[in-house]
Formats: sequence, C-alpha cells, structure tokens
Amino acid sequence: MTSSATSPTNGVDKNKNEEMVATPANCPYQLFNQEVVWNGKWIQTRQVGFKTHTGQVGVWQSVHRNTKPVEASADGVSIIARVRKQGKLYIVLVKQYRIPCGKLCLELPAGLIDAGETAQQAAIRELKEETGYVSGKVVMESKLCFLDPGLTDDSQCLVVVDVDGDAPENQNPVQVLDSTESIEVLLVEQSALMAYVTNLDSSSIVVESTLLAYAMGIQFATI
Amino acid sequence: MTSSATSPTNGVDKNKNEEMVATPANCPYQLFNQEVVWNGKWIQTRQVGFKTHTGQVGVWQSVHRNTKPVEASADGVSIIARVRKQGKLYIVLVKQYRIPCGKLCLELPAGLIDAGETAQQAAIRELKEETGYVSGKVVMESKLCFLDPGLTDDSQCLVVVDVDGDAPENQNPVQVLDSTESIEVLLVEQSALMAYVTNLDSSSIVVESTLLAYAMGIQFATI
Repeated sequence: MTSSATSPTNGVDKNKNEEMVATPANCPYQLFNQEVVWNGKWIQTRQVGFKTHTGQVGVWQSVHRNTKPVEASADGVSIIARVRKQGKLYIVLVKQYRIPCGKLCLELPAGLIDAGETAQQAAIRELKEETGYVSGKVVMESKLCFLDPGLTDDSQCLVVVDVDGDAPENQNPVQVLDSTESIEVLLVEQSALMAYVTNLDSSSIVVESTLLAYAMGIQFATI
Repeated sequence: MTSSATSPTNGVDKNKNEEMVATPANCPYQLFNQEVVWNGKWIQTRQVGFKTHTGQVGVWQSVHRNTKPVEASADGVSIIARVRKQGKLYIVLVKQYRIPCGKLCLELPAGLIDAGETAQQAAIRELKEETGYVSGKVVMESKLCFLDPGLTDDSQCLVVVDVDGDAPENQNPVQVLDSTESIEVLLVEQSALMAYVTNLDSSSIVVESTLLAYAMGIQFATI
C-alpha cells in the first residue's frame, strides 16, 4: 500500500509545498501532508506522505474509527468464552452477516467498548448481549492488539472468560440484541475447533481471522 | 457501526429516493443507496443504507482495498514459519513501523498476493523477502479469513511453512526489501510465544491480532 508514483487526486501533489509532520517515536520515515480525505459518522479515511532516509517517497492511505471513547484502552473486545458443560470444553461462536464482506461470517463474540467501560466489562456485557451466556470469571485479558495494522488502527483486546455451562442461568441462554442485529450462536468443542472451521462451506460462510488463528494455535500447539 | 439516526452528509438522506440493491445471499437486510464516498489509489471508502425486516434503518460505512488481483483467493497472506534449529522450534516474527497505527508493531511475516500468484507462492516469496528465510515446505494453507469484518473485506490466508534452520541457506538469512520497507526479524520459541508477547513494553511496541490469537491458542490448547 505504498507508492513512489503519486498523483494530486489520491496521492501527494509534488507541486504543493510539503507540510511536515513531527516524527513519531520509532518512525523511520519523515511524514508530510497528513490529511483527512473523508470523514463519516463512524469512520474516517486519511492519507499521509512519507519519505525514507534514502529519499524514496510514497503515500499511505488508512481508515480510522470515529467511535472509540477517548479513555478506552482499545476500540473493541473479542471474547474467547470457554463453556464447561457435562465434562466437555466448548468455545462460543457467533454467525452474522457482515455488510463490508458481503458474506455470513463465523466469529468470536465481539463488540466495541462503550464509554466508561473496561475491556473486561465490555467482554462480559457483549457475551451476554450477543449470546445470552453469563460469565462471572475472567481468566485473562490480552494486551492491546491491532486487527489490520497496514490498513487501520482498529484495535481490540482478547478476553478469555469461563462459563459454567451446567449452571441454571446458562441452560437456556437468551440474547439481548440491538434492533438491527441478527446473530446465531453455536458451541463447538475446543478440540474440534480447527476441523469445524476447515470444514465450513466457503460458498455460504467465511471465518474471521482472530478465531481462525486461535484455532490454528490449538491445532499446532504440540505438532 | 450502525445508526438509526442518519444525516445527508454521512448517512442516508431520507428525503432522497432510495436506490435498492439486490439482496445478497444470506443477507438479512434490504440494502439501498450503496455508494463509493472516497476512492484512492490503494483503498476506497463506501457506505450503504440497510433496513431490517422490522423497518429499522441504518447506514454501514466500510473500507476496501483497490489492490486485490481479480483472480486472487485473498488480498494477502500471513505466514506461520516454524523454524527447527538445533532441536528447538521457533516462530519467525517481524517488527515494523505501521503508519496507520502510529506505532512499531510485532507481526507474523505477511504481504499482499501479487497477480498470478497462489497464496502458497506468495507466502514463500514474502517470507524470503521480509525475513530472508527459505522454505520449501508448506504444511497447511488455511481457509480464506477476514481481518476485521465489521470494517473491511480485507482478507488473508494463513500459511504454515516449515523452515530447516540448520540448512546452509538459513544460517545467515538476507532480506530482499522494497526501498521503502524497514523490517526487523526475530525468532521466538513457540513454547515461549505467549510470554514473549505478554512481556512486550506496550509504550514502544504493539502486537498484531493474528499473531496474538495464534499465541493464545498455543497457550490455551491444554488448559
């Protein structure tokens, strides 16, 4: 996503004076002509010129969410909810249609962090809302991570929670969805997660990257 | 990233006639007023109105790469390169400054698929270019997956390759970088991957989501 050949319409106009940007920590480039090229309610698109120490010039175009609360540690959370039920260990998954992809997508439960919430609070809330499952036990909160760092600063924490699948409140989990949401919930045994994902019919459903990478870690932990 | 309150400037103008979009397979919404709101050399920004079966209306804004070869299975690849060296198993990682995030980022080696390439060919090529390591053995090519499906259709395959770290060609691996790239390579033992990521100093480096989720799968495979 870089270019040394640029144009005024979607790159850096070489006839324009360059407005330099103060170099961020660890940045190997001189940045210039940083601008918001489109600003919507939910996201904004930006571009910036960059120059290497050898004088190579390019432009980087990126997208940024407008929704992150200023004090939040990340834009959102993804939840690895481990349901122990009748002696077996399941992972909670969701299926929902994703407009940007034009496809039904299999994912970990996830959502944006609301103002005033911690990542762990958001994880417990989103798990209940999207799937109906109730968890009182956070096992781990990951570091902040970036979903697609060449394209966007959209970020998340992965939160691992344990769910007692034998408890009364988890016998008939009831979702609390927004009026525009349509989400199907399923449980897959952790030991079968990779096989389940691999055997999906790609013509009707795709998979989200965090879930797939977690399943691959399970698969390749010991081989 | 949805809204029932919309505006003409960054949402759906209710006074405008709605241009309906043919409903894609599995889509629970009626889509309308689909438009490209910004089109750059590398990415484009789009928005579309959507209506639920109960009449709730919202708008979805998303970003799409302009670079995917028409015949490619995915936009890019991420590479899980397993280096066996003197009896130990290492994973190849890269550190690079990411302009969209404004930070140095620890990642799996990765790159876009070039025209005419398969995902496996791109994985072998990118591994050599970004890290200098040579692999002749693809262990697995994952399904297509989506990196951030609520925001973009940017997609990848995860390709697992084995690298003989004791072979002559991998004793002093030499990168073949583009003139604008600046990438540091490191090997981390797979068994220590989660600890390594967890102990990173967040003030100077962040981590990419696919790598973190893989490390978490390793960590939580047996507990």
